[in-house]
Amino acid sequence: MQTNTRGAGDLFQLLRDGRARTRGELMEETGLARTTVVGRIAALIELGLVSPAGIGASSGGRPPATLAFNPACRLVIGVDLGATHGGVGITDLNGAVLARRQEPLDISDGPQPVLDWALDTAEQLLADIGRDPEDLLGIGVGVPGPVEHSSGRPIRPPIMPGWDGFDIPEYVRRRFSVSVLVDNDVNILALGERATTWPNVDDLLFIKVSTGIGAGIISGGVLQRGAQGAAGDIGHVQVPHGRDEDDLEATASAPALAAQLSRAIGDRIAPRDVVDRIRVGDPAAISAAREAGRAIGEVTAICVSMLNPSTVVIGGRLGVLVQEIIAGIREVVYRRAIPLATQHLNIVPAQGGVDAGIRGAALMVIEDRLAPDTIDAMLDGASTRGAR
Amino acid sequence: MQTNTRGAGDLFQLLRDGRARTRGELMEETGLARTTVVGRIAALIELGLVSPAGIGASSGGRPPATLAFNPACRLVIGVDLGATHGGVGITDLNGAVLARRQEPLDISDGPQPVLDWALDTAEQLLADIGRDPEDLLGIGVGVPGPVEHSSGRPIRPPIMPGWDGFDIPEYVRRRFSVSVLVDNDVNILALGERATTWPNVDDLLFIKVSTGIGAGIISGGVLQRGAQGAAGDIGHVQVPHGRDEDDLEATASAPALAAQLSRAIGDRIAPRDVVDRIRVGDPAAISAAREAGRAIGEVTAICVSMLNPSTVVIGGRLGVLVQEIIAGIREVVYRRAIPLATQHLNIVPAQGGVDAGIRGAALMVIEDRLAPDTIDAMLDGASTRGAR
Repeated sequence: MQTNTRGAGDLFQLLRDGRARTRGELMEETGLARTTVVGRIAALIELGLVSPAGIGASSGGRPPATLAFNPACRLVIGVDLGATHGGVGITDLNGAVLARRQEPLDISDGPQPVLDWALDTAEQLLADIGRDPEDLLGIGVGVPGPVEHSSGRPIRPPIMPGWDGFDIPEYVRRRFSVSVLVDNDVNILALGERATTWPNVDDLLFIKVSTGIGAGIISGGVLQRGAQGAAGDIGHVQVPHGRDEDDLEATASAPALAAQLSRAIGDRIAPRDVVDRIRVGDPAAISAAREAGRAIGEVTAICVSMLNPSTVVIGGRLGVLVQEIIAGIREVVYRRAIPLATQHLNIVPAQGGVDAGIRGAALMVIEDRLAPDTIDAMLDGASTRGAR
Repeated sequence: MQTNTRGAGDLFQLLRDGRARTRGELMEETGLARTTVVGRIAALIELGLVSPAGIGASSGGRPPATLAFNPACRLVIGVDLGATHGGVGITDLNGAVLARRQEPLDISDGPQPVLDWALDTAEQLLADIGRDPEDLLGIGVGVPGPVEHSSGRPIRPPIMPGWDGFDIPEYVRRRFSVSVLVDNDVNILALGERATTWPNVDDLLFIKVSTGIGAGIISGGVLQRGAQGAAGDIGHVQVPHGRDEDDLEATASAPALAAQLSRAIGDRIAPRDVVDRIRVGDPAAISAAREAGRAIGEVTAICVSMLNPSTVVIGGRLGVLVQEIIAGIREVVYRRAIPLATQHLNIVPAQGGVDAGIRGAALMVIEDRLAPDTIDAMLDGASTRGAR
């Protein structure tokens, strides 16, 4: 049995293209022995990942059954938490969003009320589509701050009081006993935006401009987290040609713009009102936004020279809603970065909308749980339990 | 035959660990049918990648033959071209250097004399170790300038007059009819340094400080070239806190230091003499080197915040020979980059020596030619030719 199920993960990768095949066709395609194919398919059916899909062509005698990957058989919950909003969705195993809800929230309320809301919402959405928690493959969570991806704990997150070191997976698993993965919201958005809008782009840089500023780096088709999961932290780098000692977030984030405008007009502007001030045509606000875009452009230009992406996506509330931000970024990047790196470079606003964060959080789980090694490990665990 | 050889590349990856196995053991390990294992092993023996390695344990009857990957059966030529030196070596399929030669040269002599020297040297080295050009799997070439990796042509290389757009693979193949891959010297050094000194590091940043300044980026265990192969070009980014409009190479390369020293002492110092001026203790030269190190540190700090490598290796003639360079880099990186990214960060001088470039060039070829898909394609080609 061990011999037959080890390697089931590789066989499953073939079937993820969605095409139905007979056991005989799988033998021919892989060179595997009949007993191997029969054993591995039985294990994948047991996991619920593969199901009978009809009847194949007969080569004389009884026509053989075909089998196919069934993306609707298991579900994933994607949770996308921002500073002032939260989104929760249910996806199938292709990352298609089956149900969603978004609400304003305050991340500084702390982990328990925020996660309770997310988990209550997930339970409700599952009930809405008539599915059961038993169907869950896993849960993905994005949060607006640095995360140690291996443990799922936020690490000194500046705008998330009460969350430092909180064991998000442990808390979530008290309600749903499944695999839980956590990452920062920018990495989640990079994954979601790529899946939604740029599926064929292997080198993509996602830059979120909002309460904080951060980057999600996809290189060679893979999200890069670096050695400690800290990759993409461009919010705390010095701005070339900027005021000395001011980092990018202190120069160009929503709170930085609010502070600049407050000083300029002698009245207190809240960070959440910055977008409105710009969109109603306040000249001081428009000029500050353009300057903020240029500062982000100075740092983006270095990223572009260093990583040579083919697409830079500008997201976050400011990045998407304020055209002066992307205009300032484009102006500086095309002036500064090396010609070979900008010749074919697109700099575009994010288009994924609400679903990008939900879908990104779910895809993080799907790519992890459906990887060949993970499936083999799941089957090992199952057969070990069965043997006890 | 097609069915049996497709997938031979995957079977070969198992054998790359060097352990000898019988055909029966391979069937058990993979779940493949006997006919599949027999066919794929025959194809791998035909390619010269796998050979009989002795006799396995008998389970009754005639003891079965074992098979193993034979790294000495095929050879790779690694060519490492710098601005003022060249290295040529022969490696086995594990990247172990079997023979090498290094000589001063001038890259600005142009492609034909430089490549002729490299190919003459390779032929001589092959003869020295008593091997034949028939044994070659491929040739890797590193050059000191930007390269379009897909075509192997230098793209407007600043210090390589006569090389712009030159088809290096086509020229090399006139002498040796094998696969030829070309990359810039910094990527080659990153691959070689990792293999030589940091085999377990998946996130490594290599910075070369010499006539030019450039970076080689290994993220998630993979060398990242970006969309146009331009990744790692940090020589042309603006230096934060630097003199306005001066890029990193204009601030901190060997020619930049030579120009600064020439102005300071009113006499002409050549770039190649900069290292000596520093090492004999000239205070102006030492101070300029420390400042150059700090400027490189400003850009490196941004790279570290963005990529979160676990190891930064400082290479190139200046980087390795002048301790003030690495001291300046360390000073600024540990001051500027975010704590989470520097907490476990090593900044170390390159240790690979002459062999790093040769080995890196060879490894680029080995990883490409021994990848599962490449082996399957080689076998497809072979069986198509056989069928004609």
